[in-house]
Amino acid sequence: MKNLLSMEHLTIEEIHHILDLAQAFENGEASSLARTHHVANLFFEPSTRTKTSFEMAERKIGCTVIPFDAGFSSVTKGETMYDTVKTLEMIGLDAVVIRATEDEYYNELLSGINVAVINAGDGAGQHPSQSLLDLYTIKKEFGKFEGLNITIAGDISHSRVAKSNAVALQRLGANVHFLCPEEWAGSFEAHHSWDDLIEISDVIMLLRVQHERHKVNKSFSKESYHQEYGLTIEREQQMKESAIIMHPAPVNRDVEIASELVECERSRIFEQVRNGVYTRMAIIETILKERE
Amino acid sequence: MKNLLSMEHLTIEEIHHILDLAQAFENGEASSLARTHHVANLFFEPSTRTKTSFEMAERKIGCTVIPFDAGFSSVTKGETMYDTVKTLEMIGLDAVVIRATEDEYYNELLSGINVAVINAGDGAGQHPSQSLLDLYTIKKEFGKFEGLNITIAGDISHSRVAKSNAVALQRLGANVHFLCPEEWAGSFEAHHSWDDLIEISDVIMLLRVQHERHKVNKSFSKESYHQEYGLTIEREQQMKESAIIMHPAPVNRDVEIASELVECERSRIFEQVRNGVYTRMAIIETILKERE
Amino acid sequence: MKNLLSMEHLTIEEIHHILDLAQAFENGEASSLARTHHVANLFFEPSTRTKTSFEMAERKIGCTVIPFDAGFSSVTKGETMYDTVKTLEMIGLDAVVIRATEDEYYNELLSGINVAVINAGDGAGQHPSQSLLDLYTIKKEFGKFEGLNITIAGDISHSRVAKSNAVALQRLGANVHFLCPEEWAGSFEAHHSWDDLIEISDVIMLLRVQHERHKVNKSFSKESYHQEYGLTIEREQQMKESAIIMHPAPVNRDVEIASELVECERSRIFEQVRNGVYTRMAIIETILKERE
Repeated sequence: MKNLLSMEHLTIEEIHHILDLAQAFENGEASSLARTHHVANLFFEPSTRTKTSFEMAERKIGCTVIPFDAGFSSVTKGETMYDTVKTLEMIGLDAVVIRATEDEYYNELLSGINVAVINAGDGAGQHPSQSLLDLYTIKKEFGKFEGLNITIAGDISHSRVAKSNAVALQRLGANVHFLCPEEWAGSFEAHHSWDDLIEISDVIMLLRVQHERHKVNKSFSKESYHQEYGLTIEREQQMKESAIIMHPAPVNRDVEIASELVECERSRIFEQVRNGVYTRMAIIETILKERE
Repeated sequence: MKNLLSMEHLTIEEIHHILDLAQAFENGEASSLARTHHVANLFFEPSTRTKTSFEMAERKIGCTVIPFDAGFSSVTKGETMYDTVKTLEMIGLDAVVIRATEDEYYNELLSGINVAVINAGDGAGQHPSQSLLDLYTIKKEFGKFEGLNITIAGDISHSRVAKSNAVALQRLGANVHFLCPEEWAGSFEAHHSWDDLIEISDVIMLLRVQHERHKVNKSFSKESYHQEYGLTIEREQQMKESAIIMHPAPVNRDVEIASELVECERSRIFEQVRNGVYTRMAIIETILKERE
Repeated sequence: MKNLLSMEHLTIEEIHHILDLAQAFENGEASSLARTHHVANLFFEPSTRTKTSFEMAERKIGCTVIPFDAGFSSVTKGETMYDTVKTLEMIGLDAVVIRATEDEYYNELLSGINVAVINAGDGAGQHPSQSLLDLYTIKKEFGKFEGLNITIAGDISHSRVAKSNAVALQRLGANVHFLCPEEWAGSFEAHHSWDDLIEISDVIMLLRVQHERHKVNKSFSKESYHQEYGLTIEREQQMKESAIIMHPAPVNRDVEIASELVECERSRIFEQVRNGVYTRMAIIETILKERE
C-alpha cells in the first residue's frame, strides 16, 4: 500500500489490515516506525475536522508535521498539482495528505512522484479515510460486515462519503440501502421513504445536507426534510435494539437528525471522531512503513 | 480551576496562585506536568499577539499544539461551538484556547464538555489572560495591589481588558479610576479630564482606540483624542516618580500615547508582552495539572 | 552575520561560509547549535514554496517554530513592523523570517530589535535566501564561479531573484548576461535575443513571468513569449554539453520553458528546491550560532 487514493484501490486484505492496526492503536500499541517522517496536510478545501484528525494522528505516530497554507499556495497562481507535490518531495516530505476540489486530482501524481499521497477528499469523488473510520466503527460494534443492513440517507449523489462507503461495504458483504429525495439519487437506486428501512437497519448512516453544494428549493424546507428524510425522535424508537446511528459530521441539528439524538445511547457520531484518529494513524503508519 | 472563563469566576486565591506560578516560571522553574498534553488555539477573531503568546506558553510547558484554522472551520458552515469543541475533545485534545466574537460563548460549553476551556476573549466580554498578565506586571512592580491608584483610559465601554481589569483590581484592593470621552463611558462612572488623575496615579493603563469597533466622528480626530485623552509627553512629566505606563497593545502611536513614550523608562508596554508568556504558562499549567 | 537582509550586506567570505555549511548539511552533518531556538515565519505575501522550505530547514536544525498568521496580524490593523517584531522578541523568539510587500522593510528593524531578521523577500527588492541557494546549486555543479557565463532571462526589472543574483554573481567573478523584452529591462543592460547567448551560457536562469505584477498585452501572448524569450526544445539542443537550466519556480510551463524540459537531464529546477533546504539550514544556523 503505497498511497491511499480511493476505496476501490484497496484489497479486502488491506482494509482489514488497517482496521486491525487501528484497533491495536486504540488498545495502546505504539507506532513501530523506524524513523521520524515528515508529513504535510494540503487542504485546498476547508475541513478542520478531517485536517485536525490527521494532524493529531500524524503526531501520535511520531511524524513531524510541516505546515502548508493551501489558500496561499502557488496552486492559486496556476502551478500544477504535480509541480506542487514534486516540490514538497524535494523539500524532504515523506507523505502528503491532500483534499482538493478536483475529482481524482491524484491521477497526475501517479508517476514521477515518490512521496506518499493520502487522499482526504477529491471533489465529488471519494473520502477514503472517512470510509475506513466508518468501517472501523461498524467492525468494533458488530465484529463483522456480512449480512448487516446498512442504510445511507441523504444527499447521496453529492456525497464523497456515500460513494466510498457504498463500494466498500458491498465488497465486505453488507446489504447497503439508500434513502433520499428522488432528485438527489443520481445514479443510485434509492428508497424515498423510511418505511421499509427503519426497522431492518443495523446501521443508519446519515449524511450532511450540503447547503453549500445543493440548493434546497422553496418548496423544500429544513423542517420538511427533517420530517420526510431525517431521523426523527419517533423513527429512532422504531430502530432495532442493537442498531446504531452514524454521521460523518458536521451535523445540521434538526435537519438530518433530531438534536436530542446526537448524543443518544445508540449514536456513534462523536465515537466516530475518536475512531478517526486511530484509523488515520493506521493508514499513515501502514503507508510509511512500506516505504521505509 | 477547571477552566478560565472570566475574572469573576476566579477566587482571590486562584489569582494569587497564578501570579506566583508565573513568577516561578520567570525565575526559571520548569513545568511539573506529568505528561504531554494536547492543546489547540481556536481564534475566530484575529489576534496574532495573544495567539502567538499562547503558542509559545504551551510549548514552554511541553504541550503539543494541534493547529486549528478557525477561519476555515465548520463553525463557518453553521456548526455549533458545542459540536466543534466536543469534536476536538474526541480527537484527543486536553485543552482549547478560544477567542470568539460572541459574548460568553463559553456558556454552551459548561456541560457535556470534558476538555478545558481557556477564554482568550469573548466578544465585548472579557479577556482574562490579558487581565492576569496585567496583574502580574503590577504585582512585580509594586509587590501589592492595596491602595494603588490605577487609571484606565480609553474606549472603556468596548474594551474587554477594561472590564476584566476593573473587576479584578477592585477585588484586590486597588482604587480604579476611568478616563474617557463622555460618549465612551457606557455604564462606567468616568472622569473626562486628566486633571485629577495624572499626579495621583501609580499605574496608567491606556487602552487601544478601537477604530474597528468605534467610529471616531469628524469633529473628533486622532490628534484631538491625543491632546485631550492621550498620554502626551507633557502629561508623562507630571506622573509620580514611581508610576508606570501600561497598554495591552497593539498601540496606536501618537493617539493613546506619544510615540516617544512607548519605550520610555516607565513604560511597561513590551514588558507586559514578556510577562504574558509566563502568565499563560501558569494558567494552562494550573488547569492541566488539576485535570491530570 | 547577525541578520540576512540582502546580498550586498554579505561579504564574499560570508557567502562561501554559508555555501560550505550547506554542503556539510547535505553530507549529513548535524546542527551544532547549543540550545533549542524559537523561530517564526512572517509571510505577509503568499509563498508556500519559500515558507515550507524555511519550515523544514528550521526543524532540521532543531528549532521550535511558532506559527504566525500574517494575514490576521495586527499589521493589518496598522501596527508598525517594528512593534510587531519587538512584540515577538518579547514573546521569546530568537529569529524571524520575513516576507513583506514593502522594499527594505527591514530598515526600521535595524536598531532597537534584538531578534535576528532573515529577509525572505522584500517587495521588488531582494530575495537573498533564493540567491544563496542558486549560488549553492552553481557551486555544486561547477566548483567555481569565475569565468562562468550566466544568462538570466525574463522579467528582470520586477524580479527580486534577478537583482540578488546579478549582484552576487558578478562579485563572485561570473559574467552575467540578461535577456528580456525591451520594456522589461528596467535599468539593466539586456539582450533581446537568444542568438548571442544560447551557445555560450554555462547556466541559464529562467525567471517566472509574473502575470500578477506585469500585464502581458494583447500583442504579446504566452505563446509568443515562449517563442521569442522562452527556453524552447530547439534552444535547449543548442546549449553547451555541460550547461544547466535553473528556475526559481513556480514554473509557467510552456511559457518560460517548454514543459518537457522541466525535468530534463540538464534541468536543476527541482534540485534547486532540495538545495534550498540545506542553504536555509546554513543561513539560520550561522546567524543563531553567532547570537548564542
